[in-house]
Amino acid sequence: MTEPGRFFEDFTVGQTIRHATPRTVTTGDQALYMALYGSRFALQSSDTFAHAIGYPRSPLDDLLVFNLVFGKTVPDISLNAVANLGYASTRFVKAAFPGDTLTAASEVIGLKETASGKTGIVYVSSRGFNQDGDTVLEFIRWVMVKKRDEAAPAPGPVVPELPPEVTPDQLGRAVLPLYMHGWEGAQSGSRRRWHDYQPGERIDHVDGATVEESEHMMATRLYQNPARVHFNQHAEAQGRFGRRIVYGGHVISLARALSFNGLANAFHISAINAGRHVAPLFAGGTVYAWSEVVAAAELPNRADIGALRLVTTATVDRVCEDFPGRDGDGFAEGVILELDYWVLLPR
Amino acid sequence: MTEPGRFFEDFTVGQTIRHATPRTVTTGDQALYMALYGSRFALQSSDTFAHAIGYPRSPLDDLLVFNLVFGKTVPDISLNAVANLGYASTRFVKAAFPGDTLTAASEVIGLKETASGKTGIVYVSSRGFNQDGDTVLEFIRWVMVKKRDEAAPAPGPVVPELPPEVTPDQLGRAVLPLYMHGWEGAQSGSRRRWHDYQPGERIDHVDGATVEESEHMMATRLYQNPARVHFNQHAEAQGRFGRRIVYGGHVISLARALSFNGLANAFHISAINAGRHVAPLFAGGTVYAWSEVVAAAELPNRADIGALRLVTTATVDRVCEDFPGRDGDGFAEGVILELDYWVLLPR
Amino acid sequence: MTEPGRFFEDFTVGQTIRHATPRTVTTGDQALYMALYGSRFALQSSDTFAHAIGYPRSPLDDLLVFNLVFGKTVPDISLNAVANLGYASTRFVKAAFPGDTLTAASEVIGLKETASGKTGIVYVSSRGFNQDGDTVLEFIRWVMVKKRDEAAPAPGPVVPELPPEVTPDQLGRAVLPLYMHGWEGAQSGSRRRWHDYQPGERIDHVDGATVEESEHMMATRLYQNPARVHFNQHAEAQGRFGRRIVYGGHVISLARALSFNGLANAFHISAINAGRHVAPLFAGGTVYAWSEVVAAAELPNRADIGALRLVTTATVDRVCEDFPGRDGDGFAEGVILELDYWVLLPR
Repeated sequence: MTEPGRFFEDFTVGQTIRHATPRTVTTGDQALYMALYGSRFALQSSDTFAHAIGYPRSPLDDLLVFNLVFGKTVPDISLNAVANLGYASTRFVKAAFPGDTLTAASEVIGLKETASGKTGIVYVSSRGFNQDGDTVLEFIRWVMVKKRDEAAPAPGPVVPELPPEVTPDQLGRAVLPLYMHGWEGAQSGSRRRWHDYQPGERIDHVDGATVEESEHMMATRLYQNPARVHFNQHAEAQGRFGRRIVYGGHVISLARALSFNGLANAFHISAINAGRHVAPLFAGGTVYAWSEVVAAAELPNRADIGALRLVTTATVDRVCEDFPGRDGDGFAEGVILELDYWVLLPR
Repeated sequence: MTEPGRFFEDFTVGQTIRHATPRTVTTGDQALYMALYGSRFALQSSDTFAHAIGYPRSPLDDLLVFNLVFGKTVPDISLNAVANLGYASTRFVKAAFPGDTLTAASEVIGLKETASGKTGIVYVSSRGFNQDGDTVLEFIRWVMVKKRDEAAPAPGPVVPELPPEVTPDQLGRAVLPLYMHGWEGAQSGSRRRWHDYQPGERIDHVDGATVEESEHMMATRLYQNPARVHFNQHAEAQGRFGRRIVYGGHVISLARALSFNGLANAFHISAINAGRHVAPLFAGGTVYAWSEVVAAAELPNRADIGALRLVTTATVDRVCEDFPGRDGDGFAEGVILELDYWVLLPR
Repeated sequence: MTEPGRFFEDFTVGQTIRHATPRTVTTGDQALYMALYGSRFALQSSDTFAHAIGYPRSPLDDLLVFNLVFGKTVPDISLNAVANLGYASTRFVKAAFPGDTLTAASEVIGLKETASGKTGIVYVSSRGFNQDGDTVLEFIRWVMVKKRDEAAPAPGPVVPELPPEVTPDQLGRAVLPLYMHGWEGAQSGSRRRWHDYQPGERIDHVDGATVEESEHMMATRLYQNPARVHFNQHAEAQGRFGRRIVYGGHVISLARALSFNGLANAFHISAINAGRHVAPLFAGGTVYAWSEVVAAAELPNRADIGALRLVTTATVDRVCEDFPGRDGDGFAEGVILELDYWVLLPR
């Protein structure tokens, strides 16, 4: 008897689902993350840099944590998903370190049958925990899930209110007070700090990264995310696109790594307000990215760090020197990702 | 002067060969194993899960240990092999952990020239050891090896008696007494325990995994297995298949990872009775698998765990919903592996 | 504002540049290095082997250290390089271990505008340091870099004297006195020690390794080397070769791993006298290698180890049984690398 995954009828509002496979994350996982994305942010690369600014050691990359926790939710939430519709309110609330063991649970916070009667939208609030039971990460996502039986009655719709952004007073919780005399620009790769960026600035991250099948599959397996569309060419050859689809979290991690060029001191993603996978990515495509600073915010009681709200847009096979993005009701040709998030920088 | 590997004449019955390159296995190796196969068995993924049931920490994946020890035997045993003919009596007798250093040795237990006079069959009993000299793994394999000189006289045939199976009284030695109150189905991914499976049950593991050249080569290099047919497209283009052959142990590891879907609580491979690589696998192929429970056994003095004897069949580019397997004297189209082994589950 | 990299005008003789991203190197990085190259040298593979001969633990692979330090210099030195012209005087002066944090700095030791006036040659002496500030590695390299403004006046030429070789009295500094009774040939894979090799010996390393795009990109990202030509098929399709170029350090690491077959006891690269990338390598090519012993040297006050000066030649899609190498003023068809270096072996 195999695990078929949940269908729309299997969810009820208020239900809490504890997800399988706890995972001890190690320096081995960090090394793979480095090899897959080439990230160069100093804090996640160096224990000595981390010590110098007040961390006990180099923390895990934020998106490694996100992708691991997300991966755990897949077998229970989205194995029968037709579409991942969105994310909101992703907050990184506690740093995670090599040796920590991550687990995950989700609460169903909304359900709404779609007009066709064949599917329904499931809203969940998911959390990742460390071995002490502390929340390290939380996010809301909503997915369109198949019904097992189209004739089954659906519950009355419950649609949660989704905040458009994580407000600045909620940011920075994963970051202990830092010793800013320890932050060396020669080590981090840039002398530009928080106050050197202004809303409206646009940054072309210049470089492009071509994605190979083995890379996105290794990444997605590292995250123990078993979503079938990423791994099975034999089945996907008969599917909608004729080929494997790259996991969306791989695109986000690529865009973040590319953003080092221009945002080298953006040492921590504190929150993701919203993420939208505009178009699928396939192996062989080359990913580029650019970012716009849309807001800057001070954090309560923090003289050491400040926040920038960024919208990073990733494209495939299209350079970003002309900043392609929203275009009328849609997006410019080549855009695959729009990510609205808060990063922290030293002041 | 390079190492040419041994030819048939270089083996004598009773000879013991200590194999080169000792290997300290780390969490880095475990991370790569995860990225290559996407394994989700909780015990090998989480230190906290391991602690909860009585392990000092998360042990190395059984097949990572098998593939590492096997790899060490290749330069001495099968570098000049024409064919890997079979395995028998593989027993995992002591758990291995990150930080352990594995070494290997083989004893020649049989020799038989083939009718052609050009090759001979070499039977070896191989063992893997940890840094304390304790055996962690043992297995018998037999390979067809070239003669250096076809005119050389051959020793009289010695063919060892090969047991058809590892008997249940030999199982479970690598597993200390476990605390079964610590085993949480929500964490392991299934509530099905040993007594929930019955001989005759067939399980389609559903998912498929497409293999890329870089993946099987990275795996095989991780195991320090230098067998040439896996790595050299320039030479293999002139060979029998025109391309690189995927190492058989890679197929076994893929099948085991796929089997999580249906056998999530089969936390340990205790023994492999027999393994047969029915057909070669090449990159680009998609591997599927299904398993049949062929026996269930209690273990002497163990109320905590029970054993299931499984036959797992892997196919390429063929789904397993119709359970393709033996077909007359041969195997159904698409079958590449038949593995007969014992797994342990909580009772 | 992104980092454009330095142009010729941005360098001055005597200038010291501290490079970004410090990197804590872990067993995870070692595992990836193993998976990428399949190295089998016992010292870098096994803590127990390392202990037995007097090391505190298994050190990092020399070329992992080299490639990491080299990678750090790229954003500051060669992001706008037209060509990497050469290396000299690479010395490994202190062993590095998992847990060490590597940083790098370069001093500009020469500058010379080229005849065209469009570019200039920059000579730098680069060093890698550990977390204690000790030099682990130093090397000289020279690159041809674009001028920002062709009309800009150039400084008077300063061309450093480059020693043709690292002399034997400078070798072995990274190696503490060893306990040679602990060196077991059965473990290291060969009984041939220093005195068993003579100048003039040529060794065909026999095996070939086919390179995949994902492998060289994962390696180069692991080294945090952001040179664009390795990663971006979309841009390189319009470039000189129409495709991504494999990072030269990947070729060196492949050749070193292949050299195990014949040089299994050459446990440490102590110095690289000169390296020449004769032709680019592209994915899909199969790399072979052969070595000539060009000199043997005793080391001052060292009865435990001796040095061999090797010239290792790597080829693509060409076996090395006929020892292809220099041919008139150039190199034989298929040669891609000539590396002149010193290795150490037990006496």
